[in-house]
Amino acid sequence: MDHRGRQQRLQNSLSTHRLDALLVAHPPNVRYLCGFTGSAGVLVITEKKRVFFTDGRYTEQAGAEVQGARIVIAHKGPLAAAASWLSKHQKIRSRLSSKIGIEGEHITVAARSRLAGALPSGFRLREAPALIEQARMVKDEEEIARLRSAVLLGASLFDRALETIRPGVRETEVAAEMEYAARKAGAQEMSFATIIASGERSALPHGRASQAAIPAQGFVVCDFGVILAGYCSDMTRTVYVGRPSAEAREVYQAVQQAQQAAVDAVRPGISVGEVDGAARKSLQKSGLAKYFTHSTGHGVGLEIHEAPRLAAGQSQVLLPGMVITIEPGVYVPGKWGVRIEDVVVVTERGCEVLTPTSKELVAI
Amino acid sequence: MDHRGRQQRLQNSLSTHRLDALLVAHPPNVRYLCGFTGSAGVLVITEKKRVFFTDGRYTEQAGAEVQGARIVIAHKGPLAAAASWLSKHQKIRSRLSSKIGIEGEHITVAARSRLAGALPSGFRLREAPALIEQARMVKDEEEIARLRSAVLLGASLFDRALETIRPGVRETEVAAEMEYAARKAGAQEMSFATIIASGERSALPHGRASQAAIPAQGFVVCDFGVILAGYCSDMTRTVYVGRPSAEAREVYQAVQQAQQAAVDAVRPGISVGEVDGAARKSLQKSGLAKYFTHSTGHGVGLEIHEAPRLAAGQSQVLLPGMVITIEPGVYVPGKWGVRIEDVVVVTERGCEVLTPTSKELVAI
Repeated sequence: MDHRGRQQRLQNSLSTHRLDALLVAHPPNVRYLCGFTGSAGVLVITEKKRVFFTDGRYTEQAGAEVQGARIVIAHKGPLAAAASWLSKHQKIRSRLSSKIGIEGEHITVAARSRLAGALPSGFRLREAPALIEQARMVKDEEEIARLRSAVLLGASLFDRALETIRPGVRETEVAAEMEYAARKAGAQEMSFATIIASGERSALPHGRASQAAIPAQGFVVCDFGVILAGYCSDMTRTVYVGRPSAEAREVYQAVQQAQQAAVDAVRPGISVGEVDGAARKSLQKSGLAKYFTHSTGHGVGLEIHEAPRLAAGQSQVLLPGMVITIEPGVYVPGKWGVRIEDVVVVTERGCEVLTPTSKELVAI
Repeated sequence: MDHRGRQQRLQNSLSTHRLDALLVAHPPNVRYLCGFTGSAGVLVITEKKRVFFTDGRYTEQAGAEVQGARIVIAHKGPLAAAASWLSKHQKIRSRLSSKIGIEGEHITVAARSRLAGALPSGFRLREAPALIEQARMVKDEEEIARLRSAVLLGASLFDRALETIRPGVRETEVAAEMEYAARKAGAQEMSFATIIASGERSALPHGRASQAAIPAQGFVVCDFGVILAGYCSDMTRTVYVGRPSAEAREVYQAVQQAQQAAVDAVRPGISVGEVDGAARKSLQKSGLAKYFTHSTGHGVGLEIHEAPRLAAGQSQVLLPGMVITIEPGVYVPGKWGVRIEDVVVVTERGCEVLTPTSKELVAI
């Protein structure tokens, strides 16, 4: 991974944002910039320096992983050590305070207070724009290769779901088989709590696998993902147990068409709001748009949910290298739900669907 | 669970802390107070009112779960809805601003800014003391029963570890078997990323199961837990693959004695710092105290790590009903590590060890 290049580009952008330093503590941002995969580390970036602070538990790991930054093992916590380093090394410009950017969406109010208390006068904390999250939206080749591997491993678990889903089997048993297969195949962990939502529970967009038994008849929404080499996969397929009625087939087909319409809309230059609109417009034809109660998708990478968010009114424009999910769904409370989700990468001319799995309705 | 009693006690304490309202958004705190298990909810507590805000994804779930509070389904996000409700319903006392407590250790700087921006003048946000975390330290009977069940389920997984750990088997395979057994036994999920750290990796206190193969000879640290009915288990056992040398037996015995010394120290009225000291003092006898590089334990409940923290200098006094881990370890970099961990509940006269598993050295 090009950690040094990422750090350099961030350094180059500091003056544009009128920051003298940026303090990075959100673990995926830290990992993106310097490679450290532990949970407690702070990276301080100034125009000329890059210093990484962690604690004694991570001495060995930091030495093995951190790229492009000097490592300091802190005895009183990484944030306090970063403050102490800044007070010693960061020049206060005459008449101007030194502006230290913090990650407003991640640092807690209490941590900010402690940080402010540890800095001498002459330092000012500023909520920095989401510079790293913006950079992370566009993946490089190595990241896309990792996402591709994660998506393929994730997709292989769907076979286990198809083998396991039967009337009377508990949703958690299906999840257990899939997660076991994931581990056996080398996944670090699941990227989120596996959703197996059967029968009426399929109408719950967040229907984590429960102790409920799969009924003799109805949809089963399977939404799952793995983490492989740090990168997340995410996919959803909905199957039908029993013989689907004409109405069930119609609902499924409507979601399938909406999902395809959104995939077809993905290309550089289009806004994420327009992609979301393509899915909704497709569902309007069948009168089901009112049952599509969440956004169409999200970025995926080091985190399962990252920028951009594909929702109405969002103006972010797609760029080649962005990796996003496309996952419209229809949820009729007390009755049923259907969702279909792929991971796609934006290419120079359109997009490539990374998820290899058929989207035709499977009846079990 | 006594959700209404918990809310009432919090309401009664507001005036002591000079708060007109408390805004609770940290999911375990929300769950503790009102039973909601979703990820997006805000509970507003004033002296007389309790209102819960969530979004459309959780309409059904909130109706089924939330106790003791009125439910409001918010269209623009729960935090914004809470702000809007406060501006309408919270009286501004003449000459005094209305003081709204926020969870400083959990709310982000950006969320605080958005909240402040959504409230009219006359409202002041204040970092509230950790009232709910303090209340959560002492578990009631139902919570202890749930923790007991989680600990027993968790302990049953160690049998799978003993069956699976063999030279040449990958650490992730051991984790896979344990996690599969956990799911099959009804666990919701693991309470943290399973640690299987073999050979030299046993010297890493946070050695998540890796692709490394278990060597023919050496310690294997197994640290794992499950979530059952919302409550977390946590245990560590260290086994030896091959025939342990006299030195290996001595190190193991030193840790075992230190762990027992700390367990023996646990009783109402003693400070957590003293319990930590008992483990360290025991390790000093064998000259290994310098290799014990983390704290002795932590509270466990709805979260895997919660208050109190059993570390040097911590003055929190133990009270009956507190549930804590006791987990000293010795880590010699590049060589080996040993950790032994139980969950114990503080009783009226001492403590009860909930973890049923033998702590004698097992050689595989």
